[in-house]
Amino acid sequence: MYTLHIANRNYSSWSLRPWILLTELEIPFEEKLTPFQHGTSSSWTVFRAFCPTGKVPCLHDGDITVWDSLSIAEYVAEQHAGVWPGDVRARAWARSAAAEMHSGFDALRSHCPMNCGIRMQLNSMPAALMRDIARLNELWSEGLARFGGPFLAGAAFTAVDAFFAPVVYRIQSYQLSVDDALRAYVQRMLVLPGMQRWYAAALHESWRDPDHEAETLRQGTLLQDLRAA
Amino acid sequence: MYTLHIANRNYSSWSLRPWILLTELEIPFEEKLTPFQHGTSSSWTVFRAFCPTGKVPCLHDGDITVWDSLSIAEYVAEQHAGVWPGDVRARAWARSAAAEMHSGFDALRSHCPMNCGIRMQLNSMPAALMRDIARLNELWSEGLARFGGPFLAGAAFTAVDAFFAPVVYRIQSYQLSVDDALRAYVQRMLVLPGMQRWYAAALHESWRDPDHEAETLRQGTLLQDLRAA
Ligand SMILES: N[C@@H](CCC(=O)N[C@@H](CS)C(=O)NCC(=O)O)C(=O)O
Ligand SMILES: N[C@@H](CCC(=O)N[C@@H](CS)C(=O)NCC(=O)O)C(=O)O
Repeated sequence: MYTLHIANRNYSSWSLRPWILLTELEIPFEEKLTPFQHGTSSSWTVFRAFCPTGKVPCLHDGDITVWDSLSIAEYVAEQHAGVWPGDVRARAWARSAAAEMHSGFDALRSHCPMNCGIRMQLNSMPAALMRDIARLNELWSEGLARFGGPFLAGAAFTAVDAFFAPVVYRIQSYQLSVDDALRAYVQRMLVLPGMQRWYAAALHESWRDPDHEAETLRQGTLLQDLRAA
Repeated sequence: MYTLHIANRNYSSWSLRPWILLTELEIPFEEKLTPFQHGTSSSWTVFRAFCPTGKVPCLHDGDITVWDSLSIAEYVAEQHAGVWPGDVRARAWARSAAAEMHSGFDALRSHCPMNCGIRMQLNSMPAALMRDIARLNELWSEGLARFGGPFLAGAAFTAVDAFFAPVVYRIQSYQLSVDDALRAYVQRMLVLPGMQRWYAAALHESWRDPDHEAETLRQGTLLQDLRAA
């Protein structure tokens, strides 16, 4: 059985990716959640106990350690059907889109840090963020149109949807404007059983990480905080 | 036959990865080199003609477009043996290390931009760069020891070596200090036929990109410029 190490659901966008992939594909795994550290304790030091990079996510399969969201997807894809689309064209597209997310969309990641439970009005729309949102609209529209939906690379939820799952929460939290077809996709994602479980648990977490909170609040005006007090 | 779009050999670290992978594995491909643009012309606009992200590398296989170094490796791995190690443990390790490079080592990438033909003395060793170099030493040592060398994940050159190929040129250009076993690995990489071809061609390029040059010179003192005038 796999063990998947993750951090706080409210903040950890990289943790969400393999978690939602395994969950939606109904691949059994044991979850170990270690909250981000602050003050005198560093996450890196604590996470190093289970992950060589001192980051999350990290998958253990017996004595094999797989320490990155994308290599976890590929590792699991060797043992389970459905991680990537069956069609060669859809698969090449899905892998490229997931890899683009893995090393790109920097402005979206820095200006709209994942914080599932809050609703914000952004202070400004920096040019780099507008470019990232334009590219996101282009990419998602292309996938939905070419492969027929309702998911990004066709009829089934695959790893490319998992890689963009944190973006779905960012669109909700920061009210980012996406085209109508994409808004419908966001809604479909938000009601997936796995996404609902993640979100409900995120809202009930009592940890507040000062760095993540400050990074969020720096982006604009807080409209709502839906987390349990 | 594959078509691989790349940019200047002297500067384009992401281009080198799939290029050296295909070259060392003797997988035939046609290469199309488009130099980085400057002044009134933007690379993004010009590269968009062949790549949806406006970046390099980009692989075309008939009407299939694969637009990222890591998804190119996975695409090619479905059609050719030897892209990843045959052993499941070595393969999980190689994919994790390549993915770590794909989205990490930011300090190494920003403080030591690839510029094959120059030799520099760094002005300073920022803490983040020292951490990246420490992690690199740890990661490479682990691979060489666990899988027996002479390559990172065993007896054969695989995609994980391709992903670290630009780091080999950075170590050479910026005289970064690595452990003895790793210095031997760097030497082995530098004499690979593909690496020698890439390097010779980089030195003969006559383009000088003002942004890449300025970014390099900002890091320290220029000791040597080995490029043809
Ligand atoms: N490339 C990695 C990125 C992992 C990552 O950056 N994880 C963050 C949390 S979402 C982390 O662990 N950061 C450590 C920290 O905040 O100290 C992956 O795709 O898995
Ligand atoms: N995640 C991409 C990164 C590609 C990338 O950033 N490429 C650089 C060149 S090495 C680029 O094309 N930059 C465009 C520019 O400089 O305008 C990959 O792995 O292929």
